[in-house]
Amino acid sequence: MTTLLLHLSDVDEARWAAAYGAALPGVNVVRQAEPFDPKAIDYAFVWKPRANAFDGLSNLKAVLSLGAGVDALLKHPALPDAPIVRFVDEDLTQRMSDYVVAQVTMHQRLFTRFKRDQVARVWRQNYPPAAGETNVGIMGLGVLGADAAQRLVGMGFTVLGWSRTPKTLPGVRTYSGDQLDAFLGETDILCCLLPLTPDTKGILSYGLFSKLRRRLDGGPVIVNAARGGHQVEADIVKALGDGTLGAASLDVFESEPLSPHSPLWALDNAYLTPHIAAISNVDAGVRYFSQIIRQHEAGKPLPNVVDRKRGY
Amino acid sequence: MTTLLLHLSDVDEARWAAAYGAALPGVNVVRQAEPFDPKAIDYAFVWKPRANAFDGLSNLKAVLSLGAGVDALLKHPALPDAPIVRFVDEDLTQRMSDYVVAQVTMHQRLFTRFKRDQVARVWRQNYPPAAGETNVGIMGLGVLGADAAQRLVGMGFTVLGWSRTPKTLPGVRTYSGDQLDAFLGETDILCCLLPLTPDTKGILSYGLFSKLRRRLDGGPVIVNAARGGHQVEADIVKALGDGTLGAASLDVFESEPLSPHSPLWALDNAYLTPHIAAISNVDAGVRYFSQIIRQHEAGKPLPNVVDRKRGY
Repeated sequence: MTTLLLHLSDVDEARWAAAYGAALPGVNVVRQAEPFDPKAIDYAFVWKPRANAFDGLSNLKAVLSLGAGVDALLKHPALPDAPIVRFVDEDLTQRMSDYVVAQVTMHQRLFTRFKRDQVARVWRQNYPPAAGETNVGIMGLGVLGADAAQRLVGMGFTVLGWSRTPKTLPGVRTYSGDQLDAFLGETDILCCLLPLTPDTKGILSYGLFSKLRRRLDGGPVIVNAARGGHQVEADIVKALGDGTLGAASLDVFESEPLSPHSPLWALDNAYLTPHIAAISNVDAGVRYFSQIIRQHEAGKPLPNVVDRKRGY
Repeated sequence: MTTLLLHLSDVDEARWAAAYGAALPGVNVVRQAEPFDPKAIDYAFVWKPRANAFDGLSNLKAVLSLGAGVDALLKHPALPDAPIVRFVDEDLTQRMSDYVVAQVTMHQRLFTRFKRDQVARVWRQNYPPAAGETNVGIMGLGVLGADAAQRLVGMGFTVLGWSRTPKTLPGVRTYSGDQLDAFLGETDILCCLLPLTPDTKGILSYGLFSKLRRRLDGGPVIVNAARGGHQVEADIVKALGDGTLGAASLDVFESEPLSPHSPLWALDNAYLTPHIAAISNVDAGVRYFSQIIRQHEAGKPLPNVVDRKRGY
């Protein structure tokens, strides 16, 4: 009998188990805390797996990752050789693009400037640029980056994209690899939707910020909805203070929860959210992975398998 | 010779005169401060006209209004009988929709709540609704309201519309006339893009706010990008304080500039901008009205003529 092991931390595992049970009649769904025979496990569905998560799973057909980002999972010291399937989720994609659009439009409309004037009770007219006069640069053109880019194009923004390998997207001026500086030099609002890899770790640094275009009133803006590991927070604090950046919207942090002692909290041009840009929805997740299990059991290949060398 | 009079206050009239001169060869362009024969004036292009603006213009063919809203112009004590042509401007429409989208997405993403948590240095996760789970109600479905509605539909929002007379818009659930309460009862974020008329004056009142749907975390939200006369500011202050409203984005005020003594400035769930949501662009305005003058001189009817009884 096909057996699915759930090994989830920090989320409601029982709820996932019930939903999988209903979606997969004929599949044995077991939870990490229950007694089970590790050799009988075909699929392991994981979120923040503990050190012993994969012990004895000698017949595993696939690791199913609840997260779209697998950077933490790939560092698991006992990660088995089985293929890793990433969650590619339309609902999560919509929510992530909602976050990106909200931040980009807020900054395009010079939110920080008007809020400062409000606090000072100052009436000072200044007309924000139209969407088409604002260049938004998206770093990372995977499923999430491509969707955000398309939505911003639809709203009239001038959209640029940069990715490791060359990509083509309708209405988007794309750059790749060593064209990063040219991309930055045309970008007013930079959105990071990169995977976290050794190459992209710490990419959001002071040196990068100083290469952004300085046409937006108040200075260029960064939006990070990817991973805290992409950003050097000391550099962001410095750049927000000296005008190298006009504002920053950060949903992720080097260490989460963000320490109450971080200087970021107190900056009026930093917009912090507690890693809530997008969440993996139980219904969408169970639908997605149940179909993958059924199709794989029927002999079809696994979709969205992680390339371990590439890191995503 | 066809003669165009410019009578503009608070804007760079010389810049408009130069642009009209270049766009309308063969038309005599005169400015209010220059000597001219009032009987020779065919068209008067006006913005905030003074009391004497229309004195002696006995042969006027049309009043051309730089503003899209004509509520103030219609109150001019010496307004002549000539047709009034409103500015319908794609560039202004885009900028107004930019403003509306920025405010709607900010509130949908629970900005006020997360900013308060940031000020308190509190990490408290809470997942905002997806765009499709948020109902945005647009009051006023003219050129500006219809454009904002279409853009929000394109972003995945559930969009409702209310207007004086019944209208149909693709993807928008429309209400009209006495269906206002039904419309409000389904609305999480209310955007006012109404014309200001005796019927709509003071419509944004405590009584109306208390009829909005209460599903959005923190309470329903209003966005007013139309006219200060639509809103009862004392009611907004009360509603923002007692939770009847979760937040308000206001670009217009009962009296402008807003008094430094207004209690609105100090509210952390009020987002004030100094009437900058959208501006009439010189290039777009000269293009639009030059074409209207040329076509009208060639015997064609005037477009976008104000219905004085209706008030817009």
